[in-house]
Amino acid sequence: MSRIITITTDFGTRDGFVAQMKGVILGIDPAARLVDITHDIEPYSILEGALVLKGISRYFPRGTIHLAVVDPGVGGSRRAAVLTAGGRMFVGPDNGLFFLVASRDRECEMREITNADFTFHQPHPTFHGRDLFAPAAAHLSLGKPFADVGRLIKHPASSPVPGVIHTSEGLEGEVIHVDSFGNLMTNVEAGMLNRLVATVSVGDVKIGGISRFFGEADKGRPLALINSLGFLEIAVNRGNAARDLGLGLDAHVRVGWA
Amino acid sequence: MSRIITITTDFGTRDGFVAQMKGVILGIDPAARLVDITHDIEPYSILEGALVLKGISRYFPRGTIHLAVVDPGVGGSRRAAVLTAGGRMFVGPDNGLFFLVASRDRECEMREITNADFTFHQPHPTFHGRDLFAPAAAHLSLGKPFADVGRLIKHPASSPVPGVIHTSEGLEGEVIHVDSFGNLMTNVEAGMLNRLVATVSVGDVKIGGISRFFGEADKGRPLALINSLGFLEIAVNRGNAARDLGLGLDAHVRVGWA
Amino acid sequence: MSRIITITTDFGTRDGFVAQMKGVILGIDPAARLVDITHDIEPYSILEGALVLKGISRYFPRGTIHLAVVDPGVGGSRRAAVLTAGGRMFVGPDNGLFFLVASRDRECEMREITNADFTFHQPHPTFHGRDLFAPAAAHLSLGKPFADVGRLIKHPASSPVPGVIHTSEGLEGEVIHVDSFGNLMTNVEAGMLNRLVATVSVGDVKIGGISRFFGEADKGRPLALINSLGFLEIAVNRGNAARDLGLGLDAHVRVGWA
Repeated sequence: MSRIITITTDFGTRDGFVAQMKGVILGIDPAARLVDITHDIEPYSILEGALVLKGISRYFPRGTIHLAVVDPGVGGSRRAAVLTAGGRMFVGPDNGLFFLVASRDRECEMREITNADFTFHQPHPTFHGRDLFAPAAAHLSLGKPFADVGRLIKHPASSPVPGVIHTSEGLEGEVIHVDSFGNLMTNVEAGMLNRLVATVSVGDVKIGGISRFFGEADKGRPLALINSLGFLEIAVNRGNAARDLGLGLDAHVRVGWA
Repeated sequence: MSRIITITTDFGTRDGFVAQMKGVILGIDPAARLVDITHDIEPYSILEGALVLKGISRYFPRGTIHLAVVDPGVGGSRRAAVLTAGGRMFVGPDNGLFFLVASRDRECEMREITNADFTFHQPHPTFHGRDLFAPAAAHLSLGKPFADVGRLIKHPASSPVPGVIHTSEGLEGEVIHVDSFGNLMTNVEAGMLNRLVATVSVGDVKIGGISRFFGEADKGRPLALINSLGFLEIAVNRGNAARDLGLGLDAHVRVGWA
Repeated sequence: MSRIITITTDFGTRDGFVAQMKGVILGIDPAARLVDITHDIEPYSILEGALVLKGISRYFPRGTIHLAVVDPGVGGSRRAAVLTAGGRMFVGPDNGLFFLVASRDRECEMREITNADFTFHQPHPTFHGRDLFAPAAAHLSLGKPFADVGRLIKHPASSPVPGVIHTSEGLEGEVIHVDSFGNLMTNVEAGMLNRLVATVSVGDVKIGGISRFFGEADKGRPLALINSLGFLEIAVNRGNAARDLGLGLDAHVRVGWA
């Protein structure tokens, strides 16, 4: 069975940039199986890319190669890298994009892509996705060894995920992502909710405890739940929480213990 | 040749939800061939999903598995189902999404997904697409028998497609879908136009008879035609009928016999 | 290894039109490998489609079939065509969409699709993408010979790419495409910049010389560079040039020699 290569970018799909990357991959490894994750990461949002990669990676079989390019520093000093973590490989810029997947696996290793056998000879300075990361992913898919990519990176870049404040009354966090339904995803993880929750509030909106699914609130009413990535989320049943509540990124979230 | 699994959702492609479903499918059936239909169904619009499924399903080879998730009631009481109709299988919520494809085949059968061999053990209550429908589609693709899915559903849910009124002068219907070109698709089907049509009007806009293709109207002028799904549609040649005529969903449509 | 068929349209992905084309292809050639280029070409913009095809085609392996449908004249008098150029095939309307790829290869040949063995018997007059171009691409993928498609087209249609004016002081061009990052792509090609560039200006905005990558300008500042397709482009580092500079299609561009 041929390798799966997934692709995650902030390129959109309008211009053919992603398609150029696919052409390059198929030119090197014609048997690669390409799966689009998303190309609609908020432009330059390394955190959003990191959250998506964390969310999707473990649902793919071991051996999958996740190629990801959210790369505002392209052409500058940030390193090009391959990470192995959890039995998968991640190919892209070392700018924090892989921080969340790396933090789940203490045995992970990252290498800088310096071996020219893995890349085009003269990468265009604004498009390493096509000329450097896509070829590297394809050569790894063909079986070239990870150890040949380049030297180990001992201190990978990290992503600025805002921290959650723990108080005696509860937790204080914030909205870190708004999904396409307008659901407000927070930085509060399910594992932090180790006591009974009496209230969740976001901005000035007070909500009761934690629901299990959308239909537990009346149509048009807000609710809090643990989303499918394992984060606390505020939604509006059959509505759009961001629009209906007038809230978005960075909105303040408070969890009150019972 | 491996099975084709198509995927239709209202999830958008921004958040990686669809990608999680793809990862799950490929983990179970690595040989499945995945084809995206659309992930841009108007959120929660079961009717729009039903129209798209009706439009695309018969263009795929027999044996294709159509996985579709427009599921505002996820986690609640609506049943999870597999439908066989016209030699294809349809996997998703029994909420009316499959009503139009079922209505074309009197021999169709629907079963409730209750056999735990077809699903994840603890489906997340907001994401049956990933934890229940995707695994079911993949297990069917591997060849697990339809009869094992669960018991027959005798009365599948139906979708509220508005009816067309037949009068001695003609037909009265409405706009039920606006496509990405702004074309106004109505609930009037080609088969209902069994007499010569003198006029079509939509809202306050009067149009002559029925054209065959866009270029039969001058640039910027409205026309009526039978669209490629077999429905009466109002378009503007090289324009956007919804925007140019200021009309949209539910706009009144009248067909006058000659 | 089975054939790659890429698909480029202005259909969007909301309505299932592209999916119908994919179903048709897989029904004829179940082994075809489908790759989406983009379905978000500006509706009816033949020039944008031509630019994307020029940009992506050579990154795909020889033998690839590029199916492209931006077809405002569908059902009218424009011809349906297959072009062979640079070792690839291009299937779609002869309306200028293939002008830029053809202009790079003097040995290219175009044929009109008239052989009914390559198409559906009664193509719907508004959807040749599904009923005519998709089947033709699939039959070519199966190995039916190009020579059987139909007779040679001696004078393919051309696309109105605006020309660049060469003066003793420099070049005068215009913005011909705005990509999804808001970068302003011009009609000035890298090969025209055969003297040292002192200034680039777009609209009323003056920029210095030509940068190599985005990070050479401060965050929020405009810069000019050669984009990955080989055209002069105006960007704003980590910004959106179209929005930040208030400029778009047709904006005047001036290059001044040193």
